Parts: sequence; C-alpha cells; structure tokens
Amino acid sequence: MTLGTNGNRQGASDAVRASLRHLLYPGSVAVVGASNDPLKMSGRPLDYLKRFGFRGPVYPINPTRTEVQGIPAIARIAGIPGPVDLAMIVLPAEAVPDAIRECAAIGIDTAIVAASGFSETGTDLGRLTEQRLRAAIRESEMTVLGPNCLGMISTRDRVTATFTSALDDLDELRYGPTAFVSQSGAFGSFIFNAGTRHGIGWSHYIATGNELELSTGEILTALAHSDDVQILLTYLEGVSNGSELISAFTTARELDKPIIAVKSGRSLVGARAAATHTASLSGSDQIFDGVVRELGVVRVNGVEEMLDAAKIFGTGARPAGRRVTSFSISGGCGVVMADAVAELGLTMAEWEDEWSERLAAIEPRPASVHNPVDLGAQMYLNPPMLEAGMRIALEHPGTDHIAVLLGCGESVADALIESITRVHADADKLIIVVWTGGSGRSQQILDERGIPCFSDPHRAAAALARLCDYSQWRSAPPPTRPDGIDQVGVAAIIDKAVARGRTQLSEWESSQIISMYGIPTAAARKAKNAEDAASAAAAFDGPFAIKLVSHQLVHKSDIGAVELNVAADEVQDSARRVLALGEEHGLSDVAVLLQPMVHGDVELIVGFTNDPSFGPSVVVGSGGVLVESVQDSCAALAPISGEYAESMIRSLKVAAALTPGRGRPGADLPALGDLVSRLSWLANDFGDRLADVDINPVLVDTSSGRTCAVDALAILAPSDDAPARRSSEREV
Amino acid sequence: MTLGTNGNRQGASDAVRASLRHLLYPGSVAVVGASNDPLKMSGRPLDYLKRFGFRGPVYPINPTRTEVQGIPAIARIAGIPGPVDLAMIVLPAEAVPDAIRECAAIGIDTAIVAASGFSETGTDLGRLTEQRLRAAIRESEMTVLGPNCLGMISTRDRVTATFTSALDDLDELRYGPTAFVSQSGAFGSFIFNAGTRHGIGWSHYIATGNELELSTGEILTALAHSDDVQILLTYLEGVSNGSELISAFTTARELDKPIIAVKSGRSLVGARAAATHTASLSGSDQIFDGVVRELGVVRVNGVEEMLDAAKIFGTGARPAGRRVTSFSISGGCGVVMADAVAELGLTMAEWEDEWSERLAAIEPRPASVHNPVDLGAQMYLNPPMLEAGMRIALEHPGTDHIAVLLGCGESVADALIESITRVHADADKLIIVVWTGGSGRSQQILDERGIPCFSDPHRAAAALARLCDYSQWRSAPPPTRPDGIDQVGVAAIIDKAVARGRTQLSEWESSQIISMYGIPTAAARKAKNAEDAASAAAAFDGPFAIKLVSHQLVHKSDIGAVELNVAADEVQDSARRVLALGEEHGLSDVAVLLQPMVHGDVELIVGFTNDPSFGPSVVVGSGGVLVESVQDSCAALAPISGEYAESMIRSLKVAAALTPGRGRPGADLPALGDLVSRLSWLANDFGDRLADVDINPVLVDTSSGRTCAVDALAILAPSDDAPARRSSEREV
Repeated sequence: MTLGTNGNRQGASDAVRASLRHLLYPGSVAVVGASNDPLKMSGRPLDYLKRFGFRGPVYPINPTRTEVQGIPAIARIAGIPGPVDLAMIVLPAEAVPDAIRECAAIGIDTAIVAASGFSETGTDLGRLTEQRLRAAIRESEMTVLGPNCLGMISTRDRVTATFTSALDDLDELRYGPTAFVSQSGAFGSFIFNAGTRHGIGWSHYIATGNELELSTGEILTALAHSDDVQILLTYLEGVSNGSELISAFTTARELDKPIIAVKSGRSLVGARAAATHTASLSGSDQIFDGVVRELGVVRVNGVEEMLDAAKIFGTGARPAGRRVTSFSISGGCGVVMADAVAELGLTMAEWEDEWSERLAAIEPRPASVHNPVDLGAQMYLNPPMLEAGMRIALEHPGTDHIAVLLGCGESVADALIESITRVHADADKLIIVVWTGGSGRSQQILDERGIPCFSDPHRAAAALARLCDYSQWRSAPPPTRPDGIDQVGVAAIIDKAVARGRTQLSEWESSQIISMYGIPTAAARKAKNAEDAASAAAAFDGPFAIKLVSHQLVHKSDIGAVELNVAADEVQDSARRVLALGEEHGLSDVAVLLQPMVHGDVELIVGFTNDPSFGPSVVVGSGGVLVESVQDSCAALAPISGEYAESMIRSLKVAAALTPGRGRPGADLPALGDLVSRLSWLANDFGDRLADVDINPVLVDTSSGRTCAVDALAILAPSDDAPARRSSEREV
Repeated sequence: MTLGTNGNRQGASDAVRASLRHLLYPGSVAVVGASNDPLKMSGRPLDYLKRFGFRGPVYPINPTRTEVQGIPAIARIAGIPGPVDLAMIVLPAEAVPDAIRECAAIGIDTAIVAASGFSETGTDLGRLTEQRLRAAIRESEMTVLGPNCLGMISTRDRVTATFTSALDDLDELRYGPTAFVSQSGAFGSFIFNAGTRHGIGWSHYIATGNELELSTGEILTALAHSDDVQILLTYLEGVSNGSELISAFTTARELDKPIIAVKSGRSLVGARAAATHTASLSGSDQIFDGVVRELGVVRVNGVEEMLDAAKIFGTGARPAGRRVTSFSISGGCGVVMADAVAELGLTMAEWEDEWSERLAAIEPRPASVHNPVDLGAQMYLNPPMLEAGMRIALEHPGTDHIAVLLGCGESVADALIESITRVHADADKLIIVVWTGGSGRSQQILDERGIPCFSDPHRAAAALARLCDYSQWRSAPPPTRPDGIDQVGVAAIIDKAVARGRTQLSEWESSQIISMYGIPTAAARKAKNAEDAASAAAAFDGPFAIKLVSHQLVHKSDIGAVELNVAADEVQDSARRVLALGEEHGLSDVAVLLQPMVHGDVELIVGFTNDPSFGPSVVVGSGGVLVESVQDSCAALAPISGEYAESMIRSLKVAAALTPGRGRPGADLPALGDLVSRLSWLANDFGDRLADVDINPVLVDTSSGRTCAVDALAILAPSDDAPARRSSEREV
C-alpha cells in the first residue's frame, strides 16, 4: 500500500483492502459527471454498463439534466438514494478532489478517477492538482484507482467502469479465468481487444493510470486471491513500488496462479519514453529479469507471446515433463514441429519399437511410425487415423504432450476437430494444435473447447516451453538458511567501520565477512610492514600476491598496488613498493595483504547490490577478460537456495566451461551454488547496512573442482538513507 | 541441373531450360490420368483448372470415359489433338515411366509427376520404380517436376496444375509479385494458404517433391528471371545440390530479387526426420547460415516471420537507413514501439528542437512532440492530427521510416486509414502500421493498399529490420583478390606433400602456405636437432615456444610435444625433450620448431573447410578457454572481401573485447578482416586440394593492435575423391 511515494495510509480494514472487493466486484456503480453523449469519454461508462448488461443499480450524477442516456439523473453525490460500492468519477481534474470528499461523506469507499491533467502532464498545475487529490484521498481514506486511468472491466457481473475503446467493436464480454492489469491504458486496451478475438476469456481488465494510491502490485495481489482468477496478465512500464510487486508475485506463487508479464522500457529509449509519461521509474531490467525468473513470473516480449501464453496456461495443466509427440500429415510438417520443439528447449519423445509397432497397426498404415509421426496425406480422408494415433500417444509413457500440426483442409476440418475433441476429453496429457492457414474457424472452435490452437509451430512450442518452465519451477523447494553463519561477527565488523565513519570495508575486512558466511576465501595474512610480510610468507609455499590494504582504496590495481606471482624471497621488496605507493597517494591506515597465488582456469564474478525497486539482489556472471564482451550474468532476489543458485550458474554461457570435459572433471557446481547462496544470505541479513558486495574473481579450478573467492569489496550503505527492508514475506 | 545425383543431362536448349517457360507459364495442359471425381487427388487438378478459370486448352487423358468433369476425354496421350506445354501426370507410380515416354513422343517437353511410391518410401520397389522413371526422363530429355509432388500454381494465367488442399477453401487466386518454392508439399500448402489470407499476392507456388530432376535451386533461378516475380520465398528441408542453390542465390542477388528462406532441419531431431522422408541431406546448418548471410538471403524461423517479411519486402523499398519515427495515441504505445525498435537493431530517429516545434504546432497539441510521438487519445477524435504529424516526419531528414501504432477503434478506423493512405501516396519513406486488436478489417485494407500492417509491434520491427539488413547488404562491394599472393609457392608445397603420399602438411609447411597468402605468422625457425635449435635461438629475444614438427602429428599437445615460455638458455634441453617424445611415439621425419613467444590477450580461431553442400567455406570465431562454451563463430563461402570479413568479426560476441576500451586501443579490425579474407582466397584457390585449414590461435594484442597467426594445420583433400569445385559464378 502506498499513497504516492510519501503518503502512508491508516484506518481502512486490512481484510477489505486485501480483497479490494468494491473495486473488483462492485454491486452498484455511481458515474459522477456522466454525459448524455455515449461517444464522449464521460458518456461511455454508462453506455457500456447498459450495453453489456450490468444488473446492479447505476446512478448517473449530472447537475444539469433530469435524465442521462435514459436513466434518471441525480444532481449531487449527496442525493444518491442507495448504497454505492464504486464511484466512477469522470469529472475534469480540478473537480475531482471535492468529488472524492463528497463520495466519502456518504460512505462510498472506492473510486476510479478517469481524468488526466495531473502529474503526468509535467506541469506545475498538474502537480498542484495531484497534491490536492492526494490530500483528499488521505482525508477520506478512500481506495482510489488512477487518476489518468481508463478504468476497469469485471466480466462476471458485466461491470464496465471504463471508457476504453476496446469495447467499441466487441459484441460481448468473454468471461474466463484470466485477469489483466495494465500500466498502459491505450496499449492495454489493444491487448484486451486482441485477446478477446484470440479466444481468451477474461475475469478483469484494469488500467492503473498514475497509480497515485492503488499500485499494480496491490491489484495483482487482490486478484490472485479471487476464486474467479486463475491466470494473471500484466503489462508493466515501470516499477515504482518493487515490494508491492514482489508481494504480488509471491502471493501468486503461493496460490499457483501464474503471472504472465510484459515489461516495456527494456531499451534505453523505451525507458526514457516511459519516464516521460508516467511517474514510475523503470527498475534495472537485469534485476527485474532475475526477480521474475526466481519468482516464476512468465516474462514475454510482446502482445502475441502474451496471448499465446495465456491460452496455454488457461488449460490449467502443470506438466511434469517436456517430451512432445507430434502428429501430422507429412514428413515435412513433422520436421517443422521437431525443429520448433528443439529450438524452444523441449524434446521429442522417444518411441520404442514396441510402441511404434502399435502405431504401425493403424489402418491405413501411417507413412512414419517414429516421432514425429507422419500419418500421411491419407489422414485427411481417414480422420479416425488421427484419433487412433493420439490415443496410443496418450498411453505411451514417454510422451508428456501431444502436438498436432494441421492446416487448410476446411472440408475435413470438422471430422478432425471432433477426433481431437474426443481424445482431449479423455486426456491426462496436454494436447496442442497448430493449424496453419484456413479460414480461422477451426482455430476458433478448438480454442473455445479449451484445446490451445496456434497458427505457427514456433509460437506453439514457445508457449508450451513457458508452461513447462513454470511447472518445473513450481516443484523447486524454498531456500533454507545454511549452517555455519556468524552474523554477530559480521555485525561487529560493520559496526566498527560505521563507528569510524567509513564508507567501505577494506579488502581484509571484506574477505573476513564473506568468510564468516562460510564462503571459501584465499588464505591471507595482513602485515603492518614489509618485514612482517616477509616473515608471514614463511608459513606458505609461494608465489604470492602482494596487495595494499586500505579502507580508502576501491580499485587497488588502478594505482598499481597489486603485485602478482611474487617469489618468497621477493616478498619484502614487493611489500615495500606497495606501501610506498600508499604513502604516495596519501592513504592512511595502510597495511599489506599477502596471499599465496590461487590457481583457477575459469573466473566468475559474484556479488550483491541493493536494487532501488527490489531490494537486495545477488548476481553471478562470467568474469575475466570476456566479462564485458559476453554479458553473461544472472540475478536473483536474496535469499536463494544452493540449488537455485546452481540453476542460475547453469544458465550462464560460461557454464559449458565448468562442466566436465577437455580431460578435466569440471567445477564442483553444488559448491559454487552454495557459495552464491551464502552470499545471498549475507545480502538478506545485511542488505540494510551493506550497499554492495563484490567478489571478483571467484576462481574455479576445473582440474581439481576447487572454488575460491580471491578478492572481495564491501561498500557500506549510507547510514541516513538506508534502503528499505524487503517485505515480510521475504524475511526468512 | 542434376538428374538425381548421378545423371547428367544433355540436349535441351539452355535458353528454354533457364526460363522453364513451359513449367512456369504453360499455355496448354494435359492431365494424364484425370479422374471424374473432383475430390480425388487425380480429379483435383482438372477441378481447380476449371474453378479458377485457366483459359488455355485442357486435355483430360482417361481411357475409360468419354468425358471427365464435363470435358471430352482423350483415351491416350498420343491422341491429344493440339500442342501441349505441360503434362500433369496423376497416374500411379508404376505407370509414370511409360507416360513420360509417350508424352515425349508427341513433343511434350515438360511434366509434373504427382504420384508417390518412389525412393521416399524407403522400399526396394520404390527405388526400382524411381530407377525406371530416371531412365525414362533421361531418354526422353523431358523437364520433370517431382515425383511425389503436389504440383504448381501460376497465378497470372490461373494455372493450377496441383492437387494441393490449399485451394480447397480459397475463392480466388491473389496475383502478386511473390513466388514460393517449397520442398515440403503439405507445409508449403499451409503457408500458401495462410499467406493468401495475410494479403500476400502470389506469382507462383511450386512444390518440388523428390527433386529427381528439377531442383529447388534451378526453379528459383528461373523464377528470378521472370518479370512477374519480385520476391522469392522458399521453404527448404535440405540441400542436395548446394551449387544450384548458390547459383539461384547469386542470380537473385544480381537481379535484386530478395530470397526469403525458412530452412528446417536445424535441430538434430529435425535433421533426422528430414533425412527420413526425402533423399536430401541437411547441410551443415552453421555453414548454411553463413552462406545465406553472405549472399543476402533473408533467413526466417517460421511461417509468420516469412509472411511478415514477404509483406514488407513486397513494398519494393530499399531503405538507406534504420531510423524510425513512431506515432501513436499514448506514451505507453510509444514505449512499446521504442522497445521493439531497439531490440530488433533499429534506432529511434532523433527529433531536433526545431522539428519538434513543428509537431507542437499541430492542433490540438500532441501530448509529446519527441520521438516516440504521442498524439494523445484525442487523435481518435481528430484523425487529421495523424496526417499532419506524418507529413512533418516525411520531411524530417533524420527519419527513414514512419511507424504508426494503432488498435481497436473500428468507429474511427476509416478516417485514420484514409489519412495514412494519403500520406503513403506522397511518401518516399517506408510507412508501416501496427494495428493491434480490432476486427482485422483495417489490417486487410492497409495490406491491400500496399501499406504493410502488422498485429504486433515486435513482429513489425523484426520485418523492418530484415528489410534494412537486406538493403544495407546490397550496397556492399564484391570481393577482389588481394595483392601479394604466391599461388605457385603454395602449389609446390602441396605437390611435394601429395607426391610423398601424405595426408596433411606439417605445422612448418602449414605456416608457410598461409604466409604465402600474406597472413602474418609468428617468427619461426625449423631445426633438425637440439644443437641447431639452440643456435637458431640466438637470433631472437626469448622466451620461446618449442614444438615438435612432423607431418604425422595432428595434435602436438596431446603427446606433450609443446613447451611454452622456454628461456633462451633452456632451448637445447627443451628441444631434446620434444624430439625424444617424437621418437617414443615412432614418428619419422621429425624436427623442432622454435618460435619467440607472441603476446596477445584475445584468441581467435580462423579456418576453412570444404562443406559437402556448399564448397570451400571460411569460419572465424572466438578461441581460447571459452571457445566451446560461448559458441561464437561465423561462416562464409570463400572468397570474401576484407570488409565483409570485418563485418563477420563484428558480429561475434568476442568483438566487444576487440574494440577500444579498458585503456587499450583495441584490435586493428581491418588487418584482422584482411587476414580472414586472405585465408578465404586460399580456400577459393586450393579448396580442391586442401580439405581443411585451421589457424588456431590467431593472437590479437589489443594494446598494440598487432595480429599474428601462431599455429596452423592444413589437411590435404583425399586425392581420389576431391570435392567438386564451386560453380563458375564463384570463381573470381
């Protein structure tokens, strides 16, 4: 819950707020400022409420007319005769604050503010009007959607508290389990309209406008709690309140209601445009990507990918595997399907000889009884072949999904559709159809029967892969705190540094704190002077790395204060040189760090940062010379389990260099995952006191499997502006 | 021209063959084996010829009826009363060879064989029948499409010599400049049908079947020569005759007729399925990718990408730049478009203040006068705003393309469409429209007016980016032979090795031949024994690499016969050790190679190979430890220019490590491009005698910009089975 970015709301019942019942399922609607002209923005909500058949009381408020669009008008809000769940305010911006107060005065607790003319204008007048509106909301304790907002549709009860043009050319609202929350009104309306035409059934469409009070995250959370809703779509332009969004993602995860998200502002130009027209800032896209991956949000790139995903998630299937058996009428079609399957990370099911023999018994005999199964063009003349083949695939234990690739064939379409429908009725496996060409009638019938139908094999495979990813992700266990963590020790080091007014920890201290969280670090000794360094060296085999230590120094190598491969008998000279460099640069509190050189052939970077939108986030990526070129990293919200960290590492390009091969046993991936997980717990526990921690590099020796943090740097959080802790769901 | 894989055809006039006139534009058609039942495969061609209005003479051949589908039947081929351009043979497989002979006997020179039952069955009977058909074709000197082939459609004259089900549910053939050749009949038909519904106008649709005689490459070449055809689509499953395909690509390039290709069999499973059902083998996909990139073929991944590309290439535009100005009705829509533009490698045009001021003068004032331009929802009430804005963008020198993002809005669609159409009529810039949602009517009208309209911003941007890539590629100059190449010297080294019965060159010889092509190689000396090595070392600064040289040795490091960083005073011992290793492994003809160590911080691999489908192909990619993990390489047919080689290098992930930065001037990219170009000329000149050449690594020093080939290995081509030279078009 936010009130803009400053406000803090008290008083309303949490239970009511949580469900947003009056917003999502209003039983009665007042349209404040309703116009008699159904084409005007202020006339449309009433027109739609009548046209689509809302059956609750509707009260048009209009001081100058006795009747509005055939309904008796009420002159003033105070004159409304019955209770009102939702006020749709279509007055001009300057009149809205008073209307809010008047609504509250008669007990209305929820309103939608349609007008633009607030902070999104970028003008002083707009900001002033928004301040007045914010004050009215705070005083009235109302729940308010908008302003600058197209409104909302709730399909079950045919509530159309909106002036969206998406309803212009629709004859009916298609009811279904998919809710859609959009930060862009116009583009959201296009998606809603296109989705309806693609056979999507909707529970809600809600445009959030400026999000002065209600945020996308809160609305998604409330929708996730609704029994009506099984799938949540959201179109995001920016993330102004990361914790509410994370809370929504977490709630959806707990309730197994998948969220399918498009986030724009991915490009820099896009991000600039997004910042111009809303008050929200695009969060770091890389961290957003990590967050959605970790929380199981299905991120898609565009309208059609979103609708394709909604279609396949609409089946409610949670498949255990990724093995596809394909049926079609030619070898060529089979190749197309097999290609799409492989490219999108699915696999073709293997058909053992005994199972292929069962396919061979179909009359007339299929052209190929291996997967992809080719029933031959004869299938169009013998549609029962398809049903027979599919029924064998239903029984085949190695098949998780059945994909049928068809096209054109209007004259035989009905028989094929009936065959598929009969199998679907008995199926415990997911059946998808690709129907390329034709009039669109077949696709529509199949979609309406809940059998997802696509026009392109690649789009079908992409949607199926997303469902499989989601299903696989759901089965992963939550993170648990690892053993051997010394929180008190870390707190003491931070306390001391803060007490001395420092902004960062030295390399020595940084290594200590990660070591206290059980991360394997390179052996090291700190020495005050060159002589001590030389005697400390006696305890190890050389050669050594000799580094200057100072809490004032961020990048040692920039001033040449690192010497590598120093032989034991040269340690003293080397230490003298780096200490002299410290003096030269006016550093106080200097010392020498002595480390036996660590061997490794692959370098990783592991770190955490406090994302302004999402809070403490851990990142792992390729290090070394290619770090800038290959852009190979993966982020997640802290904390994460070792298993999840391992899956992040496996998703990197550098993973191939970590696996066994080239005569090497490869990296110890569970140990690497554990390292990243432990850093994520440090982020979880001290994300309010440490701004950033970098371990660069983590050296991996793929000959021995050994992993070691060689260099670490911790930056303290500014004490007067500590970033907010994450929402309570994440405090484990 | 091929006859299967063995045959070699003589006699037919080259001019006629080149145009395939009787296949592409027959004036009269005989349907041999025509059935009276229009639903049967053998009845459909006649039905379609009547239904779609072919106006030339049609002769049904049927020995048992006096009339077929209302047309007088002819009992035997010999009895056909007039000249026939094309025989569509719909007889069963076993009757086809005799029919071919009978057709030839009365002077028919072109036939389509529809029947299956040949080699694609994988049976002995099928192979035998195909042998009989091949003999009949050879004797008769006929031009034959198929067998196992759906036939062809030529839209201008409404020729439908096909039994494709794609015509089942179409009312008319939509004529246009796009020709389509498909190796898959069924999937090709789906694409043809879907394309018609997406507003594509076709000149031809041709399914090639088993390609026993006519290949996809030949047909594409003939179509490229047709004035009717401006765009060529092709669906490829495999490449059985790479040189004919390359010839088609080259012809299309010369005539500026873009080829848009889907190639399946990308995945291993897909490739297996492709090999099962056709005789063709999928060429190495990576090389195919390189070939199509080099020859400007637009490779797409699926049906919809293909149709999107066909639509935008159908405008005939050849844009000079990639700068897009976007118009829409909300900031959110603008963000979506800007995102899509950035993700697909286009750029948003910059609007200078004086130009934005011109936009600001539009009445009513737009919500944002920067790009993406936001005309505001008011634009739906004031459609002339769109026309005014677009006309300013037409004049704006920084704008190459105008993208308009609309949606729904049926009630205002006509006015908007008319605005766009008026601007389009005066435009010398490409105008594309994204129309999301709505009934589909607006999209259809715009498409029919030649204004490409898409339903998804990402798909629109992807298609536009493909057109820009093509246009940019066309403006590049062809490769010319570099100076300083010693072909005679290379030939002598190869001759000597061949004369001695060797299968490969030694590292010394390999380095010599690349050096003779002007490639900078590491300084090196060869020494017979350890003492000579030590005295040779005196000429250089150390340290050295000491390697064993033997033409029997492929991977020196496998037996430990490479020592690195050897100090000058240790050269003799080191040389003795590697020579001893040679003796131990029973190698004769051994020597020592001495190279001063070369410094470099980025490793590349450059090589060439003789692709079985395409001939000599050069490859450049990332080397070093990440070579296996990042899969970062790019291939091209030899020869290539230095500029093109540079563009290949720039397309690699490792390119970021080669550019200036991190305090380094970066690689000398023109010198690197020259190196790769020179190797491509070696491949061009000696591709018949050298099977493979690897330079691994090429070391690049981004501090000095220096580039050096450090190790090379050349494998000789098997002398009795030398790969065929490339087609004459490529011999420069």
